Amino acid sequence: MADTAPPSGPAGTPRSGRPRYGARPTMKDVASRAGVGLKTVSRVVNGEPGVTPDTERRVQDAITALGFRRNDSARILRKGRTASIGLILEDLADPFYAPLNRAVEEVARDHGALLINGSSAEDADREQELALAFCARRVDGLIVIPAGHDHRYLEPEIAAGVATVFVDRPAGLIDADAVLTDNFGGAREGVAHLVAHGHRRIGFIGDQPHIHTAAERLRGYRAAMETAGLPVDGSWVSPGSTAPGRVRAEAERMLTGPDPVTALFTGNNRVTVTAVRVIAELGRPVALVGFDDFELADLLSPAVTVVAQDPARLGRTAARLLFRRLEGVEGAPRRVELPTRLVPRGSGELPPPSA
Amino acid sequence: MADTAPPSGPAGTPRSGRPRYGARPTMKDVASRAGVGLKTVSRVVNGEPGVTPDTERRVQDAITALGFRRNDSARILRKGRTASIGLILEDLADPFYAPLNRAVEEVARDHGALLINGSSAEDADREQELALAFCARRVDGLIVIPAGHDHRYLEPEIAAGVATVFVDRPAGLIDADAVLTDNFGGAREGVAHLVAHGHRRIGFIGDQPHIHTAAERLRGYRAAMETAGLPVDGSWVSPGSTAPGRVRAEAERMLTGPDPVTALFTGNNRVTVTAVRVIAELGRPVALVGFDDFELADLLSPAVTVVAQDPARLGRTAARLLFRRLEGVEGAPRRVELPTRLVPRGSGELPPPSA
Repeated sequence: MADTAPPSGPAGTPRSGRPRYGARPTMKDVASRAGVGLKTVSRVVNGEPGVTPDTERRVQDAITALGFRRNDSARILRKGRTASIGLILEDLADPFYAPLNRAVEEVARDHGALLINGSSAEDADREQELALAFCARRVDGLIVIPAGHDHRYLEPEIAAGVATVFVDRPAGLIDADAVLTDNFGGAREGVAHLVAHGHRRIGFIGDQPHIHTAAERLRGYRAAMETAGLPVDGSWVSPGSTAPGRVRAEAERMLTGPDPVTALFTGNNRVTVTAVRVIAELGRPVALVGFDDFELADLLSPAVTVVAQDPARLGRTAARLLFRRLEGVEGAPRRVELPTRLVPRGSGELPPPSA
Repeated sequence: MADTAPPSGPAGTPRSGRPRYGARPTMKDVASRAGVGLKTVSRVVNGEPGVTPDTERRVQDAITALGFRRNDSARILRKGRTASIGLILEDLADPFYAPLNRAVEEVARDHGALLINGSSAEDADREQELALAFCARRVDGLIVIPAGHDHRYLEPEIAAGVATVFVDRPAGLIDADAVLTDNFGGAREGVAHLVAHGHRRIGFIGDQPHIHTAAERLRGYRAAMETAGLPVDGSWVSPGSTAPGRVRAEAERMLTGPDPVTALFTGNNRVTVTAVRVIAELGRPVALVGFDDFELADLLSPAVTVVAQDPARLGRTAARLLFRRLEGVEGAPRRVELPTRLVPRGSGELPPPSA
C-alpha cells in the first residue's frame, strides 16, 4: 500500500489556500461579515420570523460570500435523526461493486450512519447530479466512484465541509482523497504470467480507454510486452465498450483469424465472462488471464486464472478514511493504492498450441 | 400476470377510511383549520418572517393535526432540483438484485427522477430507519424490498402522499401495492421436473422460513411432493441461513448419509452456488434444480437447470406502478404476480443413480 501526496498544492491546503477540511465558516463569521448579531443569523438560517428583508439580504450575502452552510449533521444528530453518507457507484449490474458497496455499508453502520447509494451508469452528468442531490439532502460525506473527469463542481461542497473520498478511480482536476487498486502493476503481472508460459502473441480486450482503470491496465499490458521484448500488433489491442456483442466480435476476430493470438488478457470481469463463452464455443483451449476475480471462476473448465482485486478492502479503506475525515483528521489528500493478487487456476497456465 | 386486490380493506380506501392516494391535505385545509389566511400558512411553512409566535403555533398545530406536508416534489421541480425516488434493497451482495436495481434506475431516469438506494441487510429495524430517512430527505416515492413484517410505520408517510410499492415480497399489516414472483408455482414446477425425471427422494435447502419468498418456495416443494404422492422425510427439508457454511453442511449431510437424497432443489441462487460446489467436490453427478438463474450457470458441467425469475421485470413493473401512482392514478392497492420460467440445462435432467 503506497500513500503519496498528490503533486499539486502544498500539504494540508488546497489550491485556494484555505484549509481543506475542518475550517468551515461559522455563524459567528457570518454575523461578523454581515455586521449583525448571532441571533439574527440564526433566525435567517432557521427561517424564523423577526428579521427585516434588508437585514435578511445582508445575512444571505454574507452566507454566500463565505460559503457558510448550516452544520446539518450536528443538527440532525441533535434531533435524533441519523447521520448519513452517500456512495456514488458506477454500474449497478457489475458484480465487482457489490462487495465494495457492502463493505462501505458495514463501516457506515459501525459508525451509526446510514448509507445511501446512487449510480452514475458511467455518465458524468448523472454523477454530478447525484453528488449534488446527495449534498442537498445533507449527507455528511461522499464516497465517489467517478464517471467524469472534472470534479471542480464538488469544490464548494468540500470547502463547506462535506468530506469526500474517491474510490476505484481518482478525482479529476481537484486534489482529493482516493483509494485505488494498482491496476498497472496487476495487469503487467497478468500479462507477464502468460509470457512466462510461452505466449508471444497475446490479445488485450479492455474497457473504454477514457476510464482510468482501463487505461492503466492497457498500460500494464504494453509494459509487460515491452519488458519481454515482444512487439504488439495493433490488431491485438481492443479497448472499448464491455457490451457482450463487441467483446464477442473482438475475441472471435483475434482467435479465429489467419494469424490468431494464442492467449487473451481481458481487462475486467465483464469482458472475461464473455471471453469465456467465446472460448467455450470455440471448442479448443485458449490461454486466458482476466483482471478481476468473479464468482464460479474456479468451477469452470478450465478454471479461470485471474488478477484479483479486493473490492471489499477498497470500500472498507475508503469508508474508514471518510469517517476519519468526518472525525476531524486533517492533512493533505491521501492516495492509497491497494495491491492485486495473481490467482493461477488453469486457464492462464495453458501453453500456446505450437509449444 | 395476475392482478388481485388484497383480501383486507374495501377497494380504494385503506382501513383508516381516508383515500390512500391523492387526497393530501392542502395549505388551504391548514389555513381553514388554523383560522388564518393562506399567506400566513405559506409564511410558516417556508420559514418566512412576519408571523407572531402565537399564530405560528396555531398553524403548526393545524399542520400536525391534518398530517399536512409541503408538496416538496412540486417545490423541488420549481426550484430546478430533481425529483427522486428511494429503493430499499435487502442484500447488496446478492446478484439477483442487480438487474432489479438497474431496471428501477432506468425507469426513474425515463421519468427524470433520481434514484437513491439503501440496504436493509435483512434487518427490519434498518429497513424502517432507511425508509423514514428517505422520507425525511423528501423522496417522492419508495420502492421497498421488505425485510420486516410490520409496515404500519409507513402509514403516515403513505397518507401524506409518499407513493410506496413493495417488490419481491409483500408489505406486512398494511394494504400496499406489491409486485411479486410466483414463488410457489415456480418451486412446484421445479420439483415436479425432478419427479418427472424419476426422483423420489428430493432434498430442499432454502432461505430462512420467515422470509416470504422462502416460505412460498418451501410450500411449492411440499405441494409438488404431495401431488406426486411422495412422502417427505423431515431430514430432507432444510430452511435456514444461506451462509455457505450452513448450506454446505446440509448438502453434504443429505448427499452422503446412509440413505441419501438423489436430487436437490435449492431455494435461491446463493444456496445453488454453494450446492454446485459441494456436488463438484463429491465427484459424482447429482440432480439439481435451483430457484433463480445466475451468471455462468450454462457454462458449468453439467449446466445448471433453474427456475428463472425475471428480476429486471420485477423492478421495471414496480417502478412503473410507482410513477403511475405519482402521476395521480388512484385505486385499490394492486398485487401483481410475475411468472417464473423453467430452464432445463442438464443438471435437472439427470436420472437417479438407481435408474
